[in-house]
Amino acid sequence: MRIILVGFGVVGQSLAKILLSRASDLYTLYGINPKIVACLDSKGCAISQAGLDLDRLLEAKLSKGTVAAYDECQSQLSLADVIDGIEAELLIEMTPTNLDSAEPGLANIISGMRSSKHIITVNKGPLALAFPSLVELANHNNIKFRFSGTVGGGTPILEFAKRCLNGERIISFRGILNGTTNYILSKMEDGLKFNEALNDAKAKGYAEASPSLDLDGYDAASKLAIMANWIMGLKVTIRDIKREGITGIDLSDIKNAAMNKNSVKLIASCDNKRLEVKPTIIKKVDPICVNGTLNAVTFCSEYSGDKTIIGRGAGGMETASSIVRDLIEIREAIAEDVL
Amino acid sequence: MRIILVGFGVVGQSLAKILLSRASDLYTLYGINPKIVACLDSKGCAISQAGLDLDRLLEAKLSKGTVAAYDECQSQLSLADVIDGIEAELLIEMTPTNLDSAEPGLANIISGMRSSKHIITVNKGPLALAFPSLVELANHNNIKFRFSGTVGGGTPILEFAKRCLNGERIISFRGILNGTTNYILSKMEDGLKFNEALNDAKAKGYAEASPSLDLDGYDAASKLAIMANWIMGLKVTIRDIKREGITGIDLSDIKNAAMNKNSVKLIASCDNKRLEVKPTIIKKVDPICVNGTLNAVTFCSEYSGDKTIIGRGAGGMETASSIVRDLIEIREAIAEDVL
Repeated sequence: MRIILVGFGVVGQSLAKILLSRASDLYTLYGINPKIVACLDSKGCAISQAGLDLDRLLEAKLSKGTVAAYDECQSQLSLADVIDGIEAELLIEMTPTNLDSAEPGLANIISGMRSSKHIITVNKGPLALAFPSLVELANHNNIKFRFSGTVGGGTPILEFAKRCLNGERIISFRGILNGTTNYILSKMEDGLKFNEALNDAKAKGYAEASPSLDLDGYDAASKLAIMANWIMGLKVTIRDIKREGITGIDLSDIKNAAMNKNSVKLIASCDNKRLEVKPTIIKKVDPICVNGTLNAVTFCSEYSGDKTIIGRGAGGMETASSIVRDLIEIREAIAEDVL
Repeated sequence: MRIILVGFGVVGQSLAKILLSRASDLYTLYGINPKIVACLDSKGCAISQAGLDLDRLLEAKLSKGTVAAYDECQSQLSLADVIDGIEAELLIEMTPTNLDSAEPGLANIISGMRSSKHIITVNKGPLALAFPSLVELANHNNIKFRFSGTVGGGTPILEFAKRCLNGERIISFRGILNGTTNYILSKMEDGLKFNEALNDAKAKGYAEASPSLDLDGYDAASKLAIMANWIMGLKVTIRDIKREGITGIDLSDIKNAAMNKNSVKLIASCDNKRLEVKPTIIKKVDPICVNGTLNAVTFCSEYSGDKTIIGRGAGGMETASSIVRDLIEIREAIAEDVL
């Protein structure tokens, strides 16, 4: 399978490492022989119809800061040029999330779909802002579109709901979808003030320098929008979600909750089409009451009650592993189509 | 799809209720039109090649204690007779679990497989004692064999591991697989002595009159054997599992653990081919540290860390919902074969 990688940051590099270490496995277990024919980052690109050497690609990025250093004659082709000049079946979109315009991810995905490439993305922006129309475009072009990594990182929250609970109606769900805020709230439960906990999260690399996406609930809301579309069939965007972040929480709120064996968590919920992200007091014995950077979601189903899934919500290797899952699923779906 | 039901206790009756309430759903969403052509319980059977009326079947069982009361001329046919005389594509085995001989479930499943029927079972006995040979027989006869309900009741533990984590190697797993013992240990954490907690579990219907299967760890070990085969590809039976129950636990063990923010849980684990069920001290913040009758399993994967699934481990409706999941999966697998 010939693949174009768009974006080569932490996730892209982790993916390259997994593909290197699992090459024989992917072939023998799933019949997948991935060949990276192009890789673009913000400074340029590397292309080879015969397939790029992933060790050299990682080395170029590490030593020179861009994949364009892969070749002597550095290439400045745009994605449109690459799509015109290179044959490929799959495009993997891994540019940074932008929740205002969804760009450049949205344009990349649309270009890929229009040129009949299957798409895997780990970029929440395009889906949070345009899920219904992207799914429509994918169906119209008869291509496979997968995005496991947009919710839960390496934890297969979307697949769990879609593939493991398909015997039943899911009535509602709620959970912790943002690891950064959960880390901060957990640290506050250990006694740190909000600003101390935030600085600790920054020091550990869990929070960005401008952490508003996390703190104000935009990240959780974007994941909630994706889940509402994919799992519940609602046609919504991030703008349909009522949203409140954690910046108004102080230590006394946390302490009061703790006295009653409760915790304050940033909970995203979907209940009777009501979509909301807000700080919520939950019982410490509630299965979604997890600490640190963990994510957790409880699905309430019609006949068999609540089911909870817990795991890491972010991380390069984790998110890259979700791309491999999507790759396997697309391979299997294509094989079925051919039959 | 024509179906033979073997066993019509709580799970079988719950299944009939779900099939009644979801008939149109199953047809429109999945193309499944289930027709129950025979139903056997320990006292007799009801048969109709045209399909049994499930309302009347439930009424017969409720009022007369056996499905044989469905017709005026009560039928005493054996499963072998039924299989010879009735055409069907699927057999659903729901007789009580027997961990000594696995009968009558084992013979029922083998009869069904030999007559080329797809099989769904919720009976742990045959799988705990003969998993490798049953899978071989299923493959030899080219039939679909599903058993979601044997582990986790309505909580899709087996599917989660098999379908959602397939991008990665699962290195190990551990969890709480028996709700009865977990309920007793939770009650002991609330201050009850072992016998008080056991009596409470009996009063609530969580424990049998002779609860050795649960208390001595046989039930958890049988589920562990099934998981080790299905998820890890080990060829083992319940006899390969080191097993210790909870009857040796007293209140002081629980209290000592609680003082260090720990709990005592009956943990089933599979690590480097080492298979074990035993009371284990775990941290209260560990995601698998759930209370009451809940089940919880953490899978440790190669690239994306630990993933935990939590839900109810038993119950008629819960287990019946797992049968519906299996039914949908078999329907989809057959459709693929036809293509």
